[in-house]
Amino acid sequence: MIAAQQHKEPRITLVGAGPGDADLITVKGMKALQSADVVLYDALVNTELLDLSPTAAPKIYVGKRNGDHSHTQEAINRLMVDYALNYGHVVRLKGGDPFVFGRGYEELDYAASYNIPTRVIPGISSAIGVPGLQHIPVTHRGLSESFWVVTATTASGALSNDLYEAVRSKATVVVLMGLHKLAEIVKLYQNEGRGKSPIAVIQSGSTTDEQIAIGIVNTITEVVEENKIKAPALIVLGDVVALHPKYQPIKEFYDIVTQE
Amino acid sequence: MIAAQQHKEPRITLVGAGPGDADLITVKGMKALQSADVVLYDALVNTELLDLSPTAAPKIYVGKRNGDHSHTQEAINRLMVDYALNYGHVVRLKGGDPFVFGRGYEELDYAASYNIPTRVIPGISSAIGVPGLQHIPVTHRGLSESFWVVTATTASGALSNDLYEAVRSKATVVVLMGLHKLAEIVKLYQNEGRGKSPIAVIQSGSTTDEQIAIGIVNTITEVVEENKIKAPALIVLGDVVALHPKYQPIKEFYDIVTQE
Repeated sequence: MIAAQQHKEPRITLVGAGPGDADLITVKGMKALQSADVVLYDALVNTELLDLSPTAAPKIYVGKRNGDHSHTQEAINRLMVDYALNYGHVVRLKGGDPFVFGRGYEELDYAASYNIPTRVIPGISSAIGVPGLQHIPVTHRGLSESFWVVTATTASGALSNDLYEAVRSKATVVVLMGLHKLAEIVKLYQNEGRGKSPIAVIQSGSTTDEQIAIGIVNTITEVVEENKIKAPALIVLGDVVALHPKYQPIKEFYDIVTQE
Repeated sequence: MIAAQQHKEPRITLVGAGPGDADLITVKGMKALQSADVVLYDALVNTELLDLSPTAAPKIYVGKRNGDHSHTQEAINRLMVDYALNYGHVVRLKGGDPFVFGRGYEELDYAASYNIPTRVIPGISSAIGVPGLQHIPVTHRGLSESFWVVTATTASGALSNDLYEAVRSKATVVVLMGLHKLAEIVKLYQNEGRGKSPIAVIQSGSTTDEQIAIGIVNTITEVVEENKIKAPALIVLGDVVALHPKYQPIKEFYDIVTQE
């Protein structure tokens, strides 16, 4: 180990990388990367962002996708602290915002137990930014006075209880990591008599792989299949979805059906 | 008017400026400002950001604060379109994210009626970013599987109906622009038997004026008064607030009271 590294104070910065487009990181996040001695990054982070950090700084992939359990949360926590103690400034680069289902607080807490100073730099959460890039506003006067962000994938693997409540609310509902639960979510809405609610499923928002499937709850599963929508994808439910230009022909079709 | 301007294609970019810290704008938002021919900006936008735009580009304040009704939404829409037609690229710079109670869609819609191309660049919403900067995660395993963002100030001036539902949910609840409604919100929680729920009120998050008042619902009004918290402020309600270091003595105090 070189002498310069031994004198660096350990510190950890949790940085939200945003939804995918590298330019959707904040200026503050960019500056943190420029001063990183090590970067630990997740699966959904745009790897172009790693080039912002010094060439000499190790960039360590700690993703947990595809059933690969080599990086448990405990292992990530330990790596993060080890690197901080040995190298100095660790940037922990996480998809979206670190605190929106990102387990960011667990990492802060672990670092605190070693008295390592931490800082948080928020990121664009896909929950708001991805519908927004499609010109779907999560709030809009006369249509939605609030929005509710839920994960489909809880620790137990079951659908979140909060989703059962969200379905009954007037809020715009955004479900993250929910594509594999779409059939269950459709059923929930149908059970509440909301089979005709507007719904959108957006794949890989803000990236070159972005795709949208749009329709009503009753038929969205087919639209998703036709368009071969794949994970990562988020689901937006509520009247604001009807503002999307692709919804117009669907609206006209159902207006005709209703008149018959 | 100079010749070069006459040939510029009109276009409008809605840019989220983030919660206040100038460095919390995205890199994409920064680039949009650098290519702006005109900037129209709101009250809560950090004016340092205006320096990113060319010196020659007019920067027009269109804020609506302090009962000043000189800039109605209709007037802003018209200004935006007039400038686009006469100058070219208008950056419409809005606090937080353009679609989180920002009336952004109304502006897109108006621009579309003049066939002016529009683009949206999301911003860090204070709803997620401001609690995050205080190390309060809107979601955390075992404490919160979802978060619900509500405005306190609806078009009618009344408390949003969605807030009545949110109080009954297990979601982390974030109330934007809610300081003047704090007493009403406290009453709502008390009526649901949630007077001992953890609550935080954060003023001017991410700026040098940032301040936090933290406590339980029953006594938060006094803490807010003692700390002289002023608008703009947001309110966070839910068990995740108890993770804040300032909550620890409050917890210990109530644990003792409960044991007596």
